[in-house]
Amino acid sequence: MAATIKDIAKQTGLGLATISSYLNGGNVREKNRVKIEAAIEELHFEVNEVARGLKTNKTKIIGIIIPELNNIFCAEIITEVEDLLRSHGYATMICDCRTDERREEEAVEFLLHRRVDGLIIMPSGRSGKYLEKFTKAGKPVVLIDRKLKDIDCDSVLVDNEGAAEDAVNRLLKAGHTRIGMIAGPKDIYTAQERYSGYCKALEQAGIRPDAKLAAWGNYTIEGGADAMKELVRENPDMTAVFVSNYEMTMGAIIQINELGIRIPEELSFIGFDNVEFAKASIPKLSIVTQPTKEIARNVSELMLGRLEEAEEAERKEYETVRLTTSFVEGRSVL
Amino acid sequence: MAATIKDIAKQTGLGLATISSYLNGGNVREKNRVKIEAAIEELHFEVNEVARGLKTNKTKIIGIIIPELNNIFCAEIITEVEDLLRSHGYATMICDCRTDERREEEAVEFLLHRRVDGLIIMPSGRSGKYLEKFTKAGKPVVLIDRKLKDIDCDSVLVDNEGAAEDAVNRLLKAGHTRIGMIAGPKDIYTAQERYSGYCKALEQAGIRPDAKLAAWGNYTIEGGADAMKELVRENPDMTAVFVSNYEMTMGAIIQINELGIRIPEELSFIGFDNVEFAKASIPKLSIVTQPTKEIARNVSELMLGRLEEAEEAERKEYETVRLTTSFVEGRSVL
Repeated sequence: MAATIKDIAKQTGLGLATISSYLNGGNVREKNRVKIEAAIEELHFEVNEVARGLKTNKTKIIGIIIPELNNIFCAEIITEVEDLLRSHGYATMICDCRTDERREEEAVEFLLHRRVDGLIIMPSGRSGKYLEKFTKAGKPVVLIDRKLKDIDCDSVLVDNEGAAEDAVNRLLKAGHTRIGMIAGPKDIYTAQERYSGYCKALEQAGIRPDAKLAAWGNYTIEGGADAMKELVRENPDMTAVFVSNYEMTMGAIIQINELGIRIPEELSFIGFDNVEFAKASIPKLSIVTQPTKEIARNVSELMLGRLEEAEEAERKEYETVRLTTSFVEGRSVL
Repeated sequence: MAATIKDIAKQTGLGLATISSYLNGGNVREKNRVKIEAAIEELHFEVNEVARGLKTNKTKIIGIIIPELNNIFCAEIITEVEDLLRSHGYATMICDCRTDERREEEAVEFLLHRRVDGLIIMPSGRSGKYLEKFTKAGKPVVLIDRKLKDIDCDSVLVDNEGAAEDAVNRLLKAGHTRIGMIAGPKDIYTAQERYSGYCKALEQAGIRPDAKLAAWGNYTIEGGADAMKELVRENPDMTAVFVSNYEMTMGAIIQINELGIRIPEELSFIGFDNVEFAKASIPKLSIVTQPTKEIARNVSELMLGRLEEAEEAERKEYETVRLTTSFVEGRSVL
């Protein structure tokens, strides 16, 4: 039979309130702390987090909703977030929603019933209406990578517009004027931002964006391959292309190989994310990279800060952290 | 104020036991079921899974311990498992242990305190001693991909030896005799099996395995690159290489590109896992692929079966499911 908090009380001669305070991280006198810890050791007392959760109304679980765990960008962030939260005693419940808004709404319900203390989400849609149940319950929500309408909360974003602008500027500087772009889904925030960075760079160079040169992929390998095929078919004069996420970069390269197009002699290429794939390609690809570790650190800090705050009933204004991308030079631009 | 089970009782005129039985999936009369569901609807009653967990002594949470969420093989399996379990009402708590045995032991403690109902683990080490706390508590453990000593439980494995044997046979058939292998860490079960398949194929062809032709990577991209460098330096007569996991395949290709070695003219190559990377390479790589979806389905079914069984107190013998790999033909073997 496992030792209970009552056994600790009996063993130490202290009141239940003192021991409960100790177990929940409250202040107890040094003398009592020593006694309690000795009793815990001796009686092999183990805290039942489930029972504790009911008493404190905190489960110390954070829900995480992501579009695809298979997506390297997601996986790199989530693995770091999980690690950071666990080191603070928080477990994570991850729900992979396959880029499906309906599934995301179901996951929100699922996590609400599990009484998670907070929610970290990389949303697929545009409206955050369905997250109100969380914020109304006073539970913090932190958005990763994408902003949403109809919801006030913290978010950690990447300067997508600036990243795309910088990539396209590099192609312009190399003398290209017919530059294609494989953009993401029109209704996703990051995709819009990257496309607008592409347009901005062109316009600043006095080039009017040509609709034919923009193909809309869906952030998947297949989508990238199809979009690449379309761009090549529609634009015999295209000399360079910017691909705006990791999966589509891989798909575009598969298609370029299929078509027998040589990089960079026949087509200059700038991809997005995943340093390892870019290094393993022939030639090495020039790519925009996102700071996944820094994103994870900021997300975790915002969440942990809010969880402490909730206890102190003093709410700070919502923050939007915006991080910058890097550029890794390969040999794919001529 | 949220509606409670008492409010449902009052509204329906039924006893608490009947309502509790309904909420926990037990049998109730059709007439009562209709009444209860109407009351739930009307009163906006929501089940608090945490409180329910305390009463039933079931949290409906499955712990998952994996070496690297960043690893595509892991991610593909886990995303499927999470999906299948959630569709049966189970949440998952994922702990990424960075291929560190000490961290795995900590994660086991962490998940025990969270009172998870079962554990799915892809272990890094050789001994399963630290998992006994689970099995002794009557909680099911399912191993993925690797077998462990000192623990009796279900496991889902891949025929690693057969997969390596088949790959090396293909190289032998193409006329190669000096065939290198980049093997995984010596203390990991799958790595041993793959190495033994390599040796078996050679021996059957009357070739004695040469220690110089085996380099031990550590299942990472860097490890694969270093091992490739070593193989090339030590074996000027090597004409083919078999690389035995996804990350090392990527690392080996990066190194081959660095060294300017042409595939397949100067070196025939068979890699492991990840169809997409193999397709995106020039030339397309021939690879062994593992059935991640099938692994996930088997793992989930074993776990769900055990969870039901635990309730019925009838334990079946432990199962070891062994799945076969596939081979995807590329243009990297000459």
